[in-house]
Amino acid sequence: MSDYRQGGFTLPGEAGYEDLTLQMAEKWGADVIRDSDGTKLSPRIVEAGYRIYSTICIIREHNAFAQAHPDAQQQTFLSSDPVLAVDGTLEIEPLNGYFDEQFEINDSPDALPYWQVWDRTENVPVPAEKWEWSDGKVIVYGCIPYHRYTVSFLAWRIWEEINMYNHTTNHWTSEHLRQLDPRHPEAWEYLQQWLRNWCEANPDTNVVRLTSLFYNFVWIFGSDLRRRTRFVDWASYDFTVSPAALHAFEQEYGYALTAEDFIHRGKLQATHRPPTAAKRDYMDFIQRFVAEKARVLVDIIHAYGKQAYVFYDDSWVGMEPYGRYFSSIGFDGLIKCVFSGFECRLCAGAEVPVHELRFHPYLFPVGLGGLPTFMEGGHPEKDAEAYWLHVRRALARQCVDRIGLGGYLHLTIGQEPFNDAIEQMGIVFRHLKELHAGEAPAELPVTVAVLHSWGSLRSWTLSGHFHETDGNILIHINEALSGLPVRVRFLSFAEVKDGALRDVDVLINAGRAGDAWSGGDAWKDADLVAEVTRFVYEGGCLIGAGEPAAVEGGDTRFALAHVLGVDQDDGAYACHAAWDFETEGEAPFRIAEEALGCTAGIRLTDPEVRVLCAEGTTPVLTLHSYGKGKAVYMGGFAYSPQAARMLLEMLLYLTDTDGKQAGLTENPMTECAWFPGQKTLVVMNSAEKPADTEVHLPCGTVSVHLEAGETVFRSIETA
Amino acid sequence: MSDYRQGGFTLPGEAGYEDLTLQMAEKWGADVIRDSDGTKLSPRIVEAGYRIYSTICIIREHNAFAQAHPDAQQQTFLSSDPVLAVDGTLEIEPLNGYFDEQFEINDSPDALPYWQVWDRTENVPVPAEKWEWSDGKVIVYGCIPYHRYTVSFLAWRIWEEINMYNHTTNHWTSEHLRQLDPRHPEAWEYLQQWLRNWCEANPDTNVVRLTSLFYNFVWIFGSDLRRRTRFVDWASYDFTVSPAALHAFEQEYGYALTAEDFIHRGKLQATHRPPTAAKRDYMDFIQRFVAEKARVLVDIIHAYGKQAYVFYDDSWVGMEPYGRYFSSIGFDGLIKCVFSGFECRLCAGAEVPVHELRFHPYLFPVGLGGLPTFMEGGHPEKDAEAYWLHVRRALARQCVDRIGLGGYLHLTIGQEPFNDAIEQMGIVFRHLKELHAGEAPAELPVTVAVLHSWGSLRSWTLSGHFHETDGNILIHINEALSGLPVRVRFLSFAEVKDGALRDVDVLINAGRAGDAWSGGDAWKDADLVAEVTRFVYEGGCLIGAGEPAAVEGGDTRFALAHVLGVDQDDGAYACHAAWDFETEGEAPFRIAEEALGCTAGIRLTDPEVRVLCAEGTTPVLTLHSYGKGKAVYMGGFAYSPQAARMLLEMLLYLTDTDGKQAGLTENPMTECAWFPGQKTLVVMNSAEKPADTEVHLPCGTVSVHLEAGETVFRSIETA
Repeated sequence: MSDYRQGGFTLPGEAGYEDLTLQMAEKWGADVIRDSDGTKLSPRIVEAGYRIYSTICIIREHNAFAQAHPDAQQQTFLSSDPVLAVDGTLEIEPLNGYFDEQFEINDSPDALPYWQVWDRTENVPVPAEKWEWSDGKVIVYGCIPYHRYTVSFLAWRIWEEINMYNHTTNHWTSEHLRQLDPRHPEAWEYLQQWLRNWCEANPDTNVVRLTSLFYNFVWIFGSDLRRRTRFVDWASYDFTVSPAALHAFEQEYGYALTAEDFIHRGKLQATHRPPTAAKRDYMDFIQRFVAEKARVLVDIIHAYGKQAYVFYDDSWVGMEPYGRYFSSIGFDGLIKCVFSGFECRLCAGAEVPVHELRFHPYLFPVGLGGLPTFMEGGHPEKDAEAYWLHVRRALARQCVDRIGLGGYLHLTIGQEPFNDAIEQMGIVFRHLKELHAGEAPAELPVTVAVLHSWGSLRSWTLSGHFHETDGNILIHINEALSGLPVRVRFLSFAEVKDGALRDVDVLINAGRAGDAWSGGDAWKDADLVAEVTRFVYEGGCLIGAGEPAAVEGGDTRFALAHVLGVDQDDGAYACHAAWDFETEGEAPFRIAEEALGCTAGIRLTDPEVRVLCAEGTTPVLTLHSYGKGKAVYMGGFAYSPQAARMLLEMLLYLTDTDGKQAGLTENPMTECAWFPGQKTLVVMNSAEKPADTEVHLPCGTVSVHLEAGETVFRSIETA
Repeated sequence: MSDYRQGGFTLPGEAGYEDLTLQMAEKWGADVIRDSDGTKLSPRIVEAGYRIYSTICIIREHNAFAQAHPDAQQQTFLSSDPVLAVDGTLEIEPLNGYFDEQFEINDSPDALPYWQVWDRTENVPVPAEKWEWSDGKVIVYGCIPYHRYTVSFLAWRIWEEINMYNHTTNHWTSEHLRQLDPRHPEAWEYLQQWLRNWCEANPDTNVVRLTSLFYNFVWIFGSDLRRRTRFVDWASYDFTVSPAALHAFEQEYGYALTAEDFIHRGKLQATHRPPTAAKRDYMDFIQRFVAEKARVLVDIIHAYGKQAYVFYDDSWVGMEPYGRYFSSIGFDGLIKCVFSGFECRLCAGAEVPVHELRFHPYLFPVGLGGLPTFMEGGHPEKDAEAYWLHVRRALARQCVDRIGLGGYLHLTIGQEPFNDAIEQMGIVFRHLKELHAGEAPAELPVTVAVLHSWGSLRSWTLSGHFHETDGNILIHINEALSGLPVRVRFLSFAEVKDGALRDVDVLINAGRAGDAWSGGDAWKDADLVAEVTRFVYEGGCLIGAGEPAAVEGGDTRFALAHVLGVDQDDGAYACHAAWDFETEGEAPFRIAEEALGCTAGIRLTDPEVRVLCAEGTTPVLTLHSYGKGKAVYMGGFAYSPQAARMLLEMLLYLTDTDGKQAGLTENPMTECAWFPGQKTLVVMNSAEKPADTEVHLPCGTVSVHLEAGETVFRSIETA
């Protein structure tokens, strides 16, 4: 039996620290050494017998080409801030308020036809003959006094955003890096040749790690430091646009996109909001383009006998691992940096040969939110262990192939607690990986489907990391689900209408009124409402959280109020009294009260609803029988081990399932995975102190003692 | 000079307590004695030389006629609760869930054509040929499975609602009183004759006090005690409906109203929500009907040499004192029961010869919310004094002609503190009345206009008393305004578009998104937005509170966000960062922090906005210069003396006005009224402890000491 000390671990090597590199590779059981951004590994490391990853960012670091071909740079639509017309003529300087080191106006002949001027008071476009672009200003004629006008325009993005962020944050003084658009024919030829050259110049590299592909997530800087980041969305597509893309789209789809399809009344189309039909078309169009071009790059890499792994971050747009074209690219591996369990599941479930996690914290002096990590005052081992508790429970459900770290290895010097913690995580990871290699752990016969606007395209993640989206109730639910022994699917509204609920036991809709997760206007579709109603009435279960299925124009605020047994008063109930209720003393599952939260205006629609928890006169957790099915409403849900346990027990109750089939711990601070074929029980303690728990298994109950944070692997004799 | 001990006071007499009646009349300086509901004054009282008010409720207490003419009773539209169709046929019992002692289904041949069946899932009516009314049930055919259906139907109201409320609350066992619809020709003939008979039978009555006219405010009871009151709206019109009214409306307006014009997706059309155009037409139609019929009754009363006063409560619907037809009725007096300052102003400003207030508490054992008043444990003097502090400041601005009490006089026995308090209030009232008779108190050259869907029709009140609408920010503002030395107007959106802002200095819009006070879809009108924008840009001032001008579909959530300098994120800002801000240390007026409140999602739209108060990262009180004008945003506003003072100082600051023109106290717990012609200064202390204040007057500053709650009248020597 292995001692689980070696393999499946990627170490960031560091030139100048050859001894340290080899010593840490030994300690952590690395089989791969990678360079970090901008650092080259020294021959001694390269020749030490490890596989070598090398990082490239394909669209960046071509400033000479970009200067020679400024029209090969990437672009975006921007909207000026609204300007008030006091009389009939108005002048607008479009770029006012934007960071002029990031943007440059594109008034080229192919761009100008896409510009628009809008009367935002009336919300109508101004006819082209009523405005002109002259001398750095848009002059609007025939304005209606006291209406506000905006200019939608194309801008070159003259500073690659990740470089811009690092530069402005760390006060770098080096040259601003630019980025090329692979849609530009000359740039595309150039990039392919550059990659061939690179492969030839790096014969020792086994794996080319792409960071990532072409188009960055959207990150728009303002000129004013009081609002430096005007807009940042990890999953919107604005940075893919160009006149060439718009032309190609129109040719293929038979209709033209306008600036307003992107600007969207100045709000842009953020991932958290339901997309328009045109945006869906455009995303598919870009996804195909990205996949086609990425396939060419992967082929080049393969031609040089190397493998192509992609790091899913930064310039990832159009490359969603659950998108329709991802597997066609032919990547050999997917690398995902993780803070959370849902990110592990996102990586582990993608259709690609190798799944690799990059653990946090990175070996950087400063971590999240500017707090010290690997410097005086930092406790990197505590950070690492906190993330590990999230990651471990997801790995217990579905494992990956590799783990690793990033950053500057020399920062580990003197950080023995951290170094030891990572060593232990490696051991547990390898043990879990071995168990999974044998078989999947026992799972409950329960399929949970998360329902939102994006469906499987946004499986597990909303957009970005947990801490970037933690104002959304759904990410907390996804995080809880990532470690539960149930099958989890992500469905779109269209899929539900097409019958996808046939394989579902529990449907979850969780979001805020009008957002992509709740669904907004999708719920105006009576067929959708009827289908979910039928599903529950015939015996299915529904969990609604926050403002589920909230939409204007119906007789209830929640389109599923009749199923949930609660609705939200947004003022429309005005003079309608709510049902009085009393909170039940006993609940059919353990309630994690501190994980719940109050959504304003919730009231019962049915006196038969059981209120399990309330804040004042507002129900916070309710249970409603509907036909043969059941529905739960939660006003809030904040992830914690206890919250995850509440969700598990809720699922067991709703589906009348015996939890011990998959192994069930008694102590809510502990969880387990049961590998029946290997007669191995894995028990995990999420508490910062020792824990004792009974674990119920099909073959009986065992007692387990765990130290703080411990993972126990125990062989179980079955009858 | 008078000692202000006598006159302008209406005492409720009580038979069996003749000595007490005459003794209290003496103590309180009554000149009028009235009977209370259901009690008759004895000859000794009637002959004691006082003027006599007698109360009648014209539509009630005609049970014999109602039984003989059941079709003369009043009606309403109701909607069944939605019922789920599981297959193609559905049966609905329309009255399920309603209080069957209040309602009886009207399936008469003239009513049935107005019934509707709705598919509420699709929000479409079901064609008449697809349903039938049979054997107490509506049977719907061809249902879409898993859609929800409702029946809208007409119901007789077989129990007059005030009687029903008193009956069910106090467990009365007497006969249920019914109510007649004056639109029924025989009922109308009967009622006129009944009034003639009554006048003949009551020769001693000087004033017929009508309580009130024909149609009660809407009060719908449910069968389940957990939601006994399903709906109560002091100002909606549902109880005026009948097939006859609908026929007459169609004849006059050329279009037919349907059940849905009333049912409105089950929500009814509450006063707190913006009315549809059809509802506005219908209200005007009813107002004219009510005024015409009321005029006939008043003429009868006048023909008997009596006066007609109306008590503005209960069956008041269609008789708004600021409605277009009110003065045409010819009432001699308007009586309003008051808890608050805004109610005094409502009464005082109506176009009618005599304005009379009925003070609270009433002489009833139990008061508001079931708490003891005139019984063991009660402190009626404290209640009276608390209301008086609200009422007094309004009387100081605009006085009425009379005050009085209601209820059972014998309850004053042993209540010396209360009896003394009322005596003192009478003295102050008469002194104020005398001052006002000479001239109006000095007023600031500031006109404040409150802007909402109803305009002047709902001057001062939203609907009902303060405690019935205190969840609405506007009633707090109206209450504050009721005692401030400024001109106050109430404007509708239509009036603003017609140029009404020309005489306005400060415009106020205060409400919740989508309600009648904020305005809802009215703000989709670009002309309205442009006009308010122009008004401020050219030098006017705007105060927005809560969710002012909030509407869907624009580039901002608040249609006036550009003017206010703040907007609300309801989720649409998604990935858009807000402006950072720092709260200012010094404000240009005194801030009553505890009166303010936080509206979720408020963010700056302009970095130049001054944040005067914030809760965490949410601005709560802001100031924005816009063109030559200024705008204030308040996240909340809860009435208190300090809040009223903040509003006054805000108005002075916004309009750059010198407050001493109208008299200005330094101590925020005190207020004053300055009567320059009579060289009299009235200073009022709202605190429960003594207060000292400087009072700034045009002629200089004086110092005043006041005892707790005291009113000081001081002669001022001017130069």
